Amino acid sequence: MTTPVSFKALIDALKALPGVGPRTAQRIAFELVQRRREEASGLARALETALEKLRSCERCNTLSETPICALCASPRRDPTLLCVVETPADQITLEHSGAFSGMYFVLMGRISPLDGIGPDDVQLETLINRASDGVVKEVILATNFTNEGEVTAHVIGELLEKQGVKVSRLARGIPIGSELEYVDAATVAQAVRERR
Amino acid sequence: MTTPVSFKALIDALKALPGVGPRTAQRIAFELVQRRREEASGLARALETALEKLRSCERCNTLSETPICALCASPRRDPTLLCVVETPADQITLEHSGAFSGMYFVLMGRISPLDGIGPDDVQLETLINRASDGVVKEVILATNFTNEGEVTAHVIGELLEKQGVKVSRLARGIPIGSELEYVDAATVAQAVRERR
Repeated sequence: MTTPVSFKALIDALKALPGVGPRTAQRIAFELVQRRREEASGLARALETALEKLRSCERCNTLSETPICALCASPRRDPTLLCVVETPADQITLEHSGAFSGMYFVLMGRISPLDGIGPDDVQLETLINRASDGVVKEVILATNFTNEGEVTAHVIGELLEKQGVKVSRLARGIPIGSELEYVDAATVAQAVRERR
Repeated sequence: MTTPVSFKALIDALKALPGVGPRTAQRIAFELVQRRREEASGLARALETALEKLRSCERCNTLSETPICALCASPRRDPTLLCVVETPADQITLEHSGAFSGMYFVLMGRISPLDGIGPDDVQLETLINRASDGVVKEVILATNFTNEGEVTAHVIGELLEKQGVKVSRLARGIPIGSELEYVDAATVAQAVRERR
């Protein structure tokens, strides 16, 4: 088979997906044009619709089809609590926990000096303005507990405290349901220090 | 975040890809609409073009943008040799080997009784007609060396031999560059029996 141009182009386009190498791209491409043509055209339409409709919420930065997202527009959320997360995925996780009823600010990234991502790249200024609007009483830092997430939380925390905003961080500790034996030493040490 | 409709639809469409679960679909979706919008619209276009242009070659069944694929139309190929493969991917592998200059017939599948795929589902009739057209002198069975591939080769072989067509099978044996110690016992046994 002299690979047809449009097929080669499809493989290349699939390779642009995160985590998809040349082999997987070829396998997916064959599957789509041979057996799953309907799914393939559904995917094409879904991509176009998503690209056309999705933008950033003007208040919290998350993905939204409206200028202000449903959550930011909701009168049922507590506007005095502002939770800072790295991504919409983290936001979904927090929502699923059912433990938070305030507002969000989604950084759409994290500060990562090694990757050349500084404070300007995660819209810190917008966040600071939002946090010091007089309505927000407490900012909860819910960035990840990775190195980059901790750096991000630290930088944001310092900036906000300078503005006199109350700042908190999600508790670190032993995950519920886990056996001590299998929890890493750093987490156990943290849990001992922050016991209550 | 109350997940926007178009975003949920994109995740669902991505889940239709082989090997992509809900988690991966969500990760890919975020990546595409956040950071790789250009790649995302490129993928949508590539899918549409491929679906529009690609069809089956009327002679060999492989993916082609023309009624007869470039390989089937080539005057440089030997029309007396017909190689039967399961998929276009297998065809590509054989072409890369540089060892075959005949024509192909692509089954676009394999006989797999357990999955309810019988001889009718892999266009055996078309193959038999093609093989007994008077031009083809030898059919080389290059289906996979899996259970299903062997069954497929066996069924096709019997049918063709009834028509008086000469049939061969790719040689089984030790892969080049491999150390005996790490080759599975069945392959070694086969290589001993078929030594030459």
